Amino acid sequence: MNKRLTIHLVGNVVRLAGGLMILPLIVSLIHGGSDAKAILIAMVITAVAGSILALIRPRRDVLRAREGFAVVALSWILVSFFGGLPFFFHGCIPSLMDCFFETVSGFTTTGATILTDVEALPKGLLFWRSFTHWAGGMGVLVLSLALIPKMGARSIHLMRAESPGPSTDKLVPRVSNNAKILYEIYVGLSALMVIALLLCGMNLFDALVHMFGAAGTGGFGTYGNSIAHWNSAAVDVVIGVFMALFGVNFSLYYYLIRRNWRAALGNSELRLYWVILLMASVLIAINIMPLFRQGYYAMANNAVIPGDANFFTALRYSFFQVSSVMTTTGYATADFNQWPQFSRVLLVVIMFIGASAGSTGGGMKVIRLQLLVKSMVRDIRQTIHPKSVNTVKLDGHTVSENILSGVQGFFFAYMAVLLISTIIVSLDGFSFETNFTAVVATLSNIGPGLGMVGPTGNFAAFSNLSKLVLSMCMLIGRLEIFPILMLFAPSAYKR
Amino acid sequence: MNKRLTIHLVGNVVRLAGGLMILPLIVSLIHGGSDAKAILIAMVITAVAGSILALIRPRRDVLRAREGFAVVALSWILVSFFGGLPFFFHGCIPSLMDCFFETVSGFTTTGATILTDVEALPKGLLFWRSFTHWAGGMGVLVLSLALIPKMGARSIHLMRAESPGPSTDKLVPRVSNNAKILYEIYVGLSALMVIALLLCGMNLFDALVHMFGAAGTGGFGTYGNSIAHWNSAAVDVVIGVFMALFGVNFSLYYYLIRRNWRAALGNSELRLYWVILLMASVLIAINIMPLFRQGYYAMANNAVIPGDANFFTALRYSFFQVSSVMTTTGYATADFNQWPQFSRVLLVVIMFIGASAGSTGGGMKVIRLQLLVKSMVRDIRQTIHPKSVNTVKLDGHTVSENILSGVQGFFFAYMAVLLISTIIVSLDGFSFETNFTAVVATLSNIGPGLGMVGPTGNFAAFSNLSKLVLSMCMLIGRLEIFPILMLFAPSAYKR
Repeated sequence: MNKRLTIHLVGNVVRLAGGLMILPLIVSLIHGGSDAKAILIAMVITAVAGSILALIRPRRDVLRAREGFAVVALSWILVSFFGGLPFFFHGCIPSLMDCFFETVSGFTTTGATILTDVEALPKGLLFWRSFTHWAGGMGVLVLSLALIPKMGARSIHLMRAESPGPSTDKLVPRVSNNAKILYEIYVGLSALMVIALLLCGMNLFDALVHMFGAAGTGGFGTYGNSIAHWNSAAVDVVIGVFMALFGVNFSLYYYLIRRNWRAALGNSELRLYWVILLMASVLIAINIMPLFRQGYYAMANNAVIPGDANFFTALRYSFFQVSSVMTTTGYATADFNQWPQFSRVLLVVIMFIGASAGSTGGGMKVIRLQLLVKSMVRDIRQTIHPKSVNTVKLDGHTVSENILSGVQGFFFAYMAVLLISTIIVSLDGFSFETNFTAVVATLSNIGPGLGMVGPTGNFAAFSNLSKLVLSMCMLIGRLEIFPILMLFAPSAYKR
Repeated sequence: MNKRLTIHLVGNVVRLAGGLMILPLIVSLIHGGSDAKAILIAMVITAVAGSILALIRPRRDVLRAREGFAVVALSWILVSFFGGLPFFFHGCIPSLMDCFFETVSGFTTTGATILTDVEALPKGLLFWRSFTHWAGGMGVLVLSLALIPKMGARSIHLMRAESPGPSTDKLVPRVSNNAKILYEIYVGLSALMVIALLLCGMNLFDALVHMFGAAGTGGFGTYGNSIAHWNSAAVDVVIGVFMALFGVNFSLYYYLIRRNWRAALGNSELRLYWVILLMASVLIAINIMPLFRQGYYAMANNAVIPGDANFFTALRYSFFQVSSVMTTTGYATADFNQWPQFSRVLLVVIMFIGASAGSTGGGMKVIRLQLLVKSMVRDIRQTIHPKSVNTVKLDGHTVSENILSGVQGFFFAYMAVLLISTIIVSLDGFSFETNFTAVVATLSNIGPGLGMVGPTGNFAAFSNLSKLVLSMCMLIGRLEIFPILMLFAPSAYKR
């Protein structure tokens, strides 16, 4: 491995993260500045540390796949460490492990929290906490990619590790252009969402913070009872719909802008994404309706009891929750941990599926589900008619056996990480439901799970070992497994 | 599909199942015969129904893969239905769905029960219930295969669906010989086990019944508290070791008999099987030791509190349980549902893994785990060194990409069935732990899970829909998924 080049690039990313801390610093100063000193110290330390690393000049300028993956993985780990320092210096999160967990959760757009009282945090830190979602969402590295034009063709390797999903539809041949377009779509959608939230009567701070959480499909908010705080159908619909929009492959928006309707709307992953989202919403709405009739869907201390609970009231809550879980955001308008088993299990299964490839969402991705199911149907056909030749097609194109095998391998790796992590986390002695869904919720970058880590709970009670394992799960999930696993492979470090 | 041939062969199998009922009838008559009438009626109905189906003569004599799979799948379903009739006519299981569930559980060697008081059953029915394990274990179809020599070369298709695991080491070119050798090894090991149990002081009836349960890796017994009833280290060791032996690929015993030591003992699946079995036993022993010091590992109403609980006492219980779960038998000497979370989750993960290919055990099989992990390591290598060519090797042989893809596809199909079944079963409203482990325990043909379906619990409380789904899981797991899924594929029925 070209270690000097790797360290040099990671240093650049860390320095950039330090520079981004200027934003929460400004927010802090506007709101009284009680956390300004902590943010400033963290900012200086981060920027200096990044600059020192960046000083290491590479002897050779060759960036291969392994360096690309290493840069992505190490950047995400270091940025999460340095990004957690403001909380540490302020004292609101006294444990460094907890600071790391919270910030990994931010940058990986997971939204799992160890905070027991989020409302106690000062505004600057709240802003930074959610901003990590937005930065992480599209990728700190896509930003840094656009900011470091000298990287040129090398950066395709970064993109391969960065952009979620098995295949990246090449938007534009040159990567910097590619990043710029994604960046513009991301900023544009984000701006639209802020306007919509302001129109719902939200203040600018809350609108920004919740846009960060939805755009990055993260889920950090400013209130203990998440989106239920507003108890507003308009807010629910705006956030619910925008979450779903951020879970769509961004290249489809590019096609929309170019008025290539066929490419934008004929995409089979998009269709399946909406079919699952809407079908699950309807099934859950039917399942929770009787509960709603009894006024039993209180979210923490904010009991929302409608006088006229009907199917559409239930649908309002089920759609929001399905959209939140499927896009791996993790916002909540109701305590789905209290819902009937059928709805809870369906939500867990949707956690596995996740959002579309090329979106800011996590999870397995809908396109992988498509390919896995198509492979299975092919295998059954092959069993019945052993002599026939069957290929798997997607949107009219034959999918190569290589990609299919890669997706199947990804699926096993995902499950292997899930089961091994669940074993380790179970050492803490919490319930099977808590352990299993805590790992699923972090590995798929969702945030809340069931049981103790349900929407009204948090991850505070886990041991440091479990928090470390769950942090690794967030990174493994966010970086699509292999870049992180690669760090443990000895052959990666051989010359 | 050649429907007439399929029905003809299925009829033969059903008729054979009817013939086998002579054994419980004899046992019944020896022990007073309170259930003799019920068994006799069921026997006549089964034999007549089988004979009528067998009367349908095929017009063409061509048995292709699809007919082979269909015969296996339909035989298992019909035999389970008819095999449940003795319980129905006797009245001890009044619901036909429950009779089917209990008998599917028997023939698929699962051992999941809907009985709340097994000790209330008369001896003839108890014998039959466990005998279905023994018959199912090696396969009713291997038996019928050996009994119908006229099938000749066609029966290779039956073997493919029948013998568990991704590849069958060809013992002897001709199938009837093949079946005969496996049959002899099976009978030989079974006889050894009965002798060992008799030496432990068990009576002949109990020794036979528990041999049936262990040899078929089923798990039905005669007492409510399973093997804990004897509270005997000797019984625990004999059953624990024999379960492990029945979870080994039977072709290795053939090599042993032929004194081909290298082939018998150098097998990498065998090594990994024992490594997992022993490592898990030690880890769980360490984990449960503090509990044992408090005398807290009572099995139901049979509290076993040793005065001198040390590591080896804990190991006695952990080895038995790991051997029972890994071979997918399901016997218990302690209520592992009460064990610490770490041990419980480790047992659930072992449920996924299962026994060796070519044994009577269920689950994913160790060889699949080997191939999946090797594929994953290969994928990571390929990521680091994109230009290198990596093949997966097993026992010195290169594994074809076709087989790897088949194993990965199997893994996804297994997980897909698991998740979809869990969703449906969750409609009953039991806990996530109960639902999830009930499906794992049936799909992997183990029997007990955690929570309500733990070793002191049973499946009685599930709805008929759930019982049907869980019955399907047992069949899908036992027949390695595809033969059952094939029954739902329209193209299987096309000419």
